[in-house]
Amino acid sequence: MTAFEFLDYAGTAVFAISGALAAINKRFDLFGILILAAVTAIGGGTLRDVLIGRTPVGWMQNLEYVYIIFGATIITILFGNYFNHLRKTLFLFDSIGLALFTITGVELGLQFGLHPVVCVLLGTMTAAFGGVIRDTLSNEIPLIFKKEIYASISIIGGALFLLLTQFELKSNLIYIIISITVVTLRVFAVRFGWHLPKLSKVD
Amino acid sequence: MTAFEFLDYAGTAVFAISGALAAINKRFDLFGILILAAVTAIGGGTLRDVLIGRTPVGWMQNLEYVYIIFGATIITILFGNYFNHLRKTLFLFDSIGLALFTITGVELGLQFGLHPVVCVLLGTMTAAFGGVIRDTLSNEIPLIFKKEIYASISIIGGALFLLLTQFELKSNLIYIIISITVVTLRVFAVRFGWHLPKLSKVD
Amino acid sequence: MTAFEFLDYAGTAVFAISGALAAINKRFDLFGILILAAVTAIGGGTLRDVLIGRTPVGWMQNLEYVYIIFGATIITILFGNYFNHLRKTLFLFDSIGLALFTITGVELGLQFGLHPVVCVLLGTMTAAFGGVIRDTLSNEIPLIFKKEIYASISIIGGALFLLLTQFELKSNLIYIIISITVVTLRVFAVRFGWHLPKLSKVD
Repeated sequence: MTAFEFLDYAGTAVFAISGALAAINKRFDLFGILILAAVTAIGGGTLRDVLIGRTPVGWMQNLEYVYIIFGATIITILFGNYFNHLRKTLFLFDSIGLALFTITGVELGLQFGLHPVVCVLLGTMTAAFGGVIRDTLSNEIPLIFKKEIYASISIIGGALFLLLTQFELKSNLIYIIISITVVTLRVFAVRFGWHLPKLSKVD
Repeated sequence: MTAFEFLDYAGTAVFAISGALAAINKRFDLFGILILAAVTAIGGGTLRDVLIGRTPVGWMQNLEYVYIIFGATIITILFGNYFNHLRKTLFLFDSIGLALFTITGVELGLQFGLHPVVCVLLGTMTAAFGGVIRDTLSNEIPLIFKKEIYASISIIGGALFLLLTQFELKSNLIYIIISITVVTLRVFAVRFGWHLPKLSKVD
Repeated sequence: MTAFEFLDYAGTAVFAISGALAAINKRFDLFGILILAAVTAIGGGTLRDVLIGRTPVGWMQNLEYVYIIFGATIITILFGNYFNHLRKTLFLFDSIGLALFTITGVELGLQFGLHPVVCVLLGTMTAAFGGVIRDTLSNEIPLIFKKEIYASISIIGGALFLLLTQFELKSNLIYIIISITVVTLRVFAVRFGWHLPKLSKVD
C-alpha cells in the first residue's frame, strides 16, 4: 500500500464516520447508519464516475472501500461517544481526505481528456458531494451550501494541483503540497472564521 | 409471460401504487402522482443500471414498466379509497416484489461479473432505493432508514439467493424459495415488531 | 451561432437565474448559489444523459454551459434586485427554455433509437427535472409536483414535436411552432389559473 492509498483509505474512513455520526444523531437504525456512512464516503466519487461514464463505478471494482465503510461504521457505533477526544485527529484526516478526494477527481478528469475547468469541478464533486447527498437524505439543506468554505478550499486545491502537474514534479511531492495547503486553509478558515458571503433576499 | 415476469410486473404495480398513495396524501397534482409512482417502482432499478453502466436504463428498453406504472397510477387515483380492503393482498405483492427485485439486482450483478458482496448490495438497491427516492422527493427522511427492517430482509434474500445459485437447482425453485423466505420474514417482522436497534445520540 | 443555440443558451441562463434566486432567498453562500444555479440549468439534461448512457455528460464536452451558468449567477448576485422589472422577459425566456430543452431531450432520444413514449419522457425530464433537483437540494417538495402545469406543457410540446417530425418540415419551422405553442400555453395557464387536479387524501 502506497502512502497515497493509506491516506485515501483514512479519508474514506473519516468521511464514513461523519456520515455514521449524522445518522446516529438523526436516530436512524443500523441499516440507515450504514447507508449514510456509505453515501458520505463514496457518494461524491460515485456521482463523478456516473457523470463521466466510468462504470461499473469505482467502489464496485475495489471492495476495500466497502470494507472500510463497514469497519468505520461499526467503530462509530461502538466508540462514537469517545470521538470528542479525537476531534483534532478526525479534522486532520477529514482535511487530508478533502485534499486527496479532490486530487483523484481531477486526475480522473485528466485521464478522460476533459477540459481543466471540468477537471477541477470533478475534483470538488468527488470531495464535497458525498456530504451533499448525506444532508439531502437526512432531510437537511446541504451544509456546504450555507456554512462551510469546504468546497471553495477543494476548488483551490484542485486548481493548484492542475497547475503543479504542468511542472516536472514527483507525484508524491504534489500530493504532499496539496494536502498541506488544504489542511492549512481549513485550519485558517476555522481559526479566523472565514466564510463565503451571503446576500440579502431578493424581492 | 413466465411466472417470474408476472410477479415482477405485479411487484412493479404494487410499488407504483405505494408511490401514488404517498403522493396523493402529500397533495401532489396528477403529474406529481405519476412521477412519485414511477420513481418508487423503477427508481431502484434505474439507480442500479446507472451505477453498473447498463444504459439506456432498463425501463427505456422494456415499455411494459411504463404502461404498468401508468395503469397502476390511474387505478390508485380512481380506487385508492378502497385499498384498505386489499391491504393484505398489497402487502403480499409488495413482499414478493421485494424478493424478485432483489433477485433481479443480484442476477444483473453476476452477469456484470461483480463481486458477490456487490451483487447483494445491488439487489438491495434495486428493491429498496425506489422508496428512498420517493421519500426524498416527498421531503421526508427515508422510511427504511428509521422504521423498517425492509432492507435487511432484502439483504438476507439476496445472500440466500447467491448461496442457492451454487447448487444445481432450477431457477424457478430458487425464486420460489426466496419469495417464501422474504414473505415469511416480513410477516414475522410485522407480527413480532422486529426492528433494527437505534443508538442514543453521540455528543 | 444558430438561432436555436442562441435560444438554448438564453434558456440555460434563465434557468440558472431561477436557481440562483432560489438560493439567495434560502440564504445560501456563494458556492451554494452557484451550485443551485447549475443544477437548475443543467440538472435535467445531466440526468437524461446519465440515463441514456451519453457520457461524459453534455456540459462536460461543451463548456459554454459552464460559462453561461457562471455569468448568469454573477449577474443575478449583482442585479437580482432589479429582476422584478424583467419579470415578463424572464418568463418569456423561461418558456422558450422549456420548449427548447424539451426538444433537445426528444431529439436525443430519437438519436438513441428509443421508443417515442420514452423520447417524450426524456424531453420532459430535460426541461423539468433541473427544477426538481433544485427544490430537493433546497429541502422543498418539488414545485412542479404541486402547483405548476409546467411539466404537462412540456409533455404536450414533446408529443407535438414528435408528430411534426413525421412531416417534411424544416427543423427551424418546427422549433418555432413548438416554442410558440409552449409560450402560449404557459401564458394561458397563468392567465386562466390552469392547474392539474389534486385528490382528497386516501385513508
